Amino acid sequence: MRIAVLGVGLIGGSIGLAARRRAGARVTGYDPDRATLERALELGALDAAAGSLAEAVAGAEAVICAAPVGALPELVASALDATGEGTVVSDVGSTKRALVEAVAERPDGERFIGGHPLAGAETSGVENARAELFEGARWYLTPTGRSSGILYDRLQRLVAALGARPQAIPADAHDRMMATVSHLPHVIANVLVERAGTMLGADDRLPEVGPSFRDSTRVAGSNPAIWADIFAANREVLAAEAEGLADRLREAARLLRSGDRDAIRAWQSAAASERRRLLERGVAGGELRQLRISVENRPGTVAEIALALGRAGLNIEDMALHPAPDMRTGAISIWVAGPGDAERAAAIVRGLGHAVAVVAAGE
Amino acid sequence: MRIAVLGVGLIGGSIGLAARRRAGARVTGYDPDRATLERALELGALDAAAGSLAEAVAGAEAVICAAPVGALPELVASALDATGEGTVVSDVGSTKRALVEAVAERPDGERFIGGHPLAGAETSGVENARAELFEGARWYLTPTGRSSGILYDRLQRLVAALGARPQAIPADAHDRMMATVSHLPHVIANVLVERAGTMLGADDRLPEVGPSFRDSTRVAGSNPAIWADIFAANREVLAAEAEGLADRLREAARLLRSGDRDAIRAWQSAAASERRRLLERGVAGGELRQLRISVENRPGTVAEIALALGRAGLNIEDMALHPAPDMRTGAISIWVAGPGDAERAAAIVRGLGHAVAVVAAGE
Repeated sequence: MRIAVLGVGLIGGSIGLAARRRAGARVTGYDPDRATLERALELGALDAAAGSLAEAVAGAEAVICAAPVGALPELVASALDATGEGTVVSDVGSTKRALVEAVAERPDGERFIGGHPLAGAETSGVENARAELFEGARWYLTPTGRSSGILYDRLQRLVAALGARPQAIPADAHDRMMATVSHLPHVIANVLVERAGTMLGADDRLPEVGPSFRDSTRVAGSNPAIWADIFAANREVLAAEAEGLADRLREAARLLRSGDRDAIRAWQSAAASERRRLLERGVAGGELRQLRISVENRPGTVAEIALALGRAGLNIEDMALHPAPDMRTGAISIWVAGPGDAERAAAIVRGLGHAVAVVAAGE
Repeated sequence: MRIAVLGVGLIGGSIGLAARRRAGARVTGYDPDRATLERALELGALDAAAGSLAEAVAGAEAVICAAPVGALPELVASALDATGEGTVVSDVGSTKRALVEAVAERPDGERFIGGHPLAGAETSGVENARAELFEGARWYLTPTGRSSGILYDRLQRLVAALGARPQAIPADAHDRMMATVSHLPHVIANVLVERAGTMLGADDRLPEVGPSFRDSTRVAGSNPAIWADIFAANREVLAAEAEGLADRLREAARLLRSGDRDAIRAWQSAAASERRRLLERGVAGGELRQLRISVENRPGTVAEIALALGRAGLNIEDMALHPAPDMRTGAISIWVAGPGDAERAAAIVRGLGHAVAVVAAGE
């Protein structure tokens, strides 16, 4: 297959690498940033670096637009303009409805099928591109009733050949889901930081409370340029979700104000089991268990613990450090799957001389 | 000094250990759970285990009530009843206003001064008690206009002798602060989990999106019994804070719906710098920098990276794992303090053969 990749950063570069190495495709790339394009070629992500969009898409059976969300409407339109009947055009943007609707008005809209791979959020840049980025990753595709069946079939085969797991979903359902599980946590983090800042005043820093504020606000103010684009692209859905959350927060305030401990305890328990259900069903070995480990001298200790668990074949599914105020002591939380592994892990950690408590999620 | 500790779990046990070893105090303890009391004595947290509250407080110059928040009003009242003019009574509960107000109505209310050490949130149980638990930790004290100056002085000297940093704060300001930075993140986590659960339906699990949802909801449904108590004890303040946050969320929804990218970008940037200010001023070595590391085979890799950084004398201030869908590859985020250390750390990690990007907070 001949494919064109427009925008060759982390995602575009990884598509190129995977398409060449795993799918045996011939890949032509274009990027307005000449240095990025050259680097992608050097790294083996492309067979050829094109001097223009038109040159890149010439003869391509599939065109993947891998630009920032804000640039996609124009880029997709240009890609459709520059290609003909036999070419499917897709993208990798993290919101879909606005783009799908914009393209739907075109007479050749049946050749565009939106896409969104859930991969690569942690890094950026073509330097970090790798052929395995999409291995096992969900890759949403958002066909409409108008979409060409032949072209959808070609696109989903390509996505699967890259190592991903394609799944069709309506564009609006996709955006609602992403709003709740990805964009809304960013909005909340920002709002929570604002509240804390206003309350503490300009000269105070946060008291050394537990890790909850740090965890809840970790994504506050994530890359402003990228997130302003994502927020703008998903603005109607995201605003509605934020309002829905505000309503729920007011209901929670009513429950809290009632002081009804049984009801509050039931609410708390329901949240624990719901989170477990949402996050952990896919984990092999059963529900996650948390090991809370009291430690001194963190750098060496993290390594020592991780090594000992690794040697025993135990996988650390998640980890959080809780520095103590003196920054010399603290606690480490480690999550492992299943009660059996948790007890084995706890025994190993105790054997290293650390105090450790095993708690199920929600304790 | 002779002190009595009522409730000898993690906090009470650690107070006993620190008071005996660091402050040279004689410590008598009482706990309704006989096994816990015996264990505290065995571990050296007490000079004597009393058979009753009255026996424990006899002759004590200071009495520290270290029971769960819900049990404190009754316990503090009993401690005041059982002691006379020369004895200061304090507690270690995480909310203060309701307790302080309840005690204020008593004629001997000037002998009670509320307390709250910011330590020990990660573990529980007397087995995890240690004399260093309060080393460098903030310990809030909530005197009122009626509080005895002599007794306040004695209490704050005791707290300092335990290794903590005492600070006086009005009870209501304390509770507002704890609501925003500690309790509210728990409420939000619950609400966010509810929304996601409702939206996804009973049979779906969460898609493999980035770590934001996992981080934001990590504390959802934390120990229902303990948190129902904390929520109930701080209910008026917490409900008001939750409503305040709901209002701000509606304002954020308006901003998002406007689609004004410049304003959204400015909002995002402000959140990034505000969080930096709130969390990181106290960290030695400067602002935190994040290293985003792409890895394979996590258990061994975490250890290898942590060991290499530890060997170079670099301290890991915070760490988060981002498992990839295949659970065999993924990314590790590590935070180190200051740009110099971040670049040194990045070079070391690159030397191990991993792709790594250094980002300042907010990128």
